Amino acid sequence: MISQTSEYALRAVVHLANVGGGPAVAQEIAEATHVSVGYLHKILRLLARNGILDAQRGVGGGFSLARPPSDISVLDVLHVTESELARIDGCPLGIEGHTELCPLHRLLDEQMAAIEHVFQSTSIGDLVSDESVRTHPLCRFPSAKIARPAPSTDVQD
Amino acid sequence: MISQTSEYALRAVVHLANVGGGPAVAQEIAEATHVSVGYLHKILRLLARNGILDAQRGVGGGFSLARPPSDISVLDVLHVTESELARIDGCPLGIEGHTELCPLHRLLDEQMAAIEHVFQSTSIGDLVSDESVRTHPLCRFPSAKIARPAPSTDVQD
Repeated sequence: MISQTSEYALRAVVHLANVGGGPAVAQEIAEATHVSVGYLHKILRLLARNGILDAQRGVGGGFSLARPPSDISVLDVLHVTESELARIDGCPLGIEGHTELCPLHRLLDEQMAAIEHVFQSTSIGDLVSDESVRTHPLCRFPSAKIARPAPSTDVQD
Repeated sequence: MISQTSEYALRAVVHLANVGGGPAVAQEIAEATHVSVGYLHKILRLLARNGILDAQRGVGGGFSLARPPSDISVLDVLHVTESELARIDGCPLGIEGHTELCPLHRLLDEQMAAIEHVFQSTSIGDLVSDESVRTHPLCRFPSAKIARPAPSTDVQD
């Protein structure tokens, strides 16, 4: 349904929400998300180019959320990384007379619409502030109050 | 949500349902589905290896549906071509203590479950027998009663 790249992007954004929005360097985010730092760095730059993250160079720099977690929807992230969530707005075969979707493409489009609605109405903030579950995204601890890891120590995987 | 390969596979299976189950040669299916014959042939062989189609060599051969269209669900086809429709049955990060899904992975899994349910309960037969719409999958004509194209003529795109 979503690509591995999209899931890694969501993990990265969730980690930044976990640590107060950042900044965090790629190595820290890679350790927290269990993704190789080389691949994750490409995803982080992609998210930065598309307004989900801010990137600051130099000492004290790193990647930060460009907006509060409550203002970033899951769909905002997926729109950056996912090519296959697009709605179907006309016959993909260009068939003459198909001014409405046929049952095949209507079925596919309806599922995309349903998913799109849920992902649009769920924010990253919702995911990290849900106290009703015993598991917190990316963390061993059940609480949303996560201590920021020290730079050289991976205490939060 | 689904890959282009998956959509092409669904088109191919729908075309075979349109023509009474087959057999049809790859060239005919490629013309009906608007897919290059080389790429489609790989998809057809994949569907045959996984029990959705039967493949017969020689004169009068081609690809046929292995079961009636009403016995092939959309999910049956997608299971062959789609790697990203799998449910999430445990923490993808292997985090200790995550005996239930965290809000991030629960969200993704719930959407997959919803889609899976719809695709499992919709058969290829449902798609080609829906008389409530003015468009029939892959066809210019609004009727499910499609004349089989002559071998050298593309009357059905």
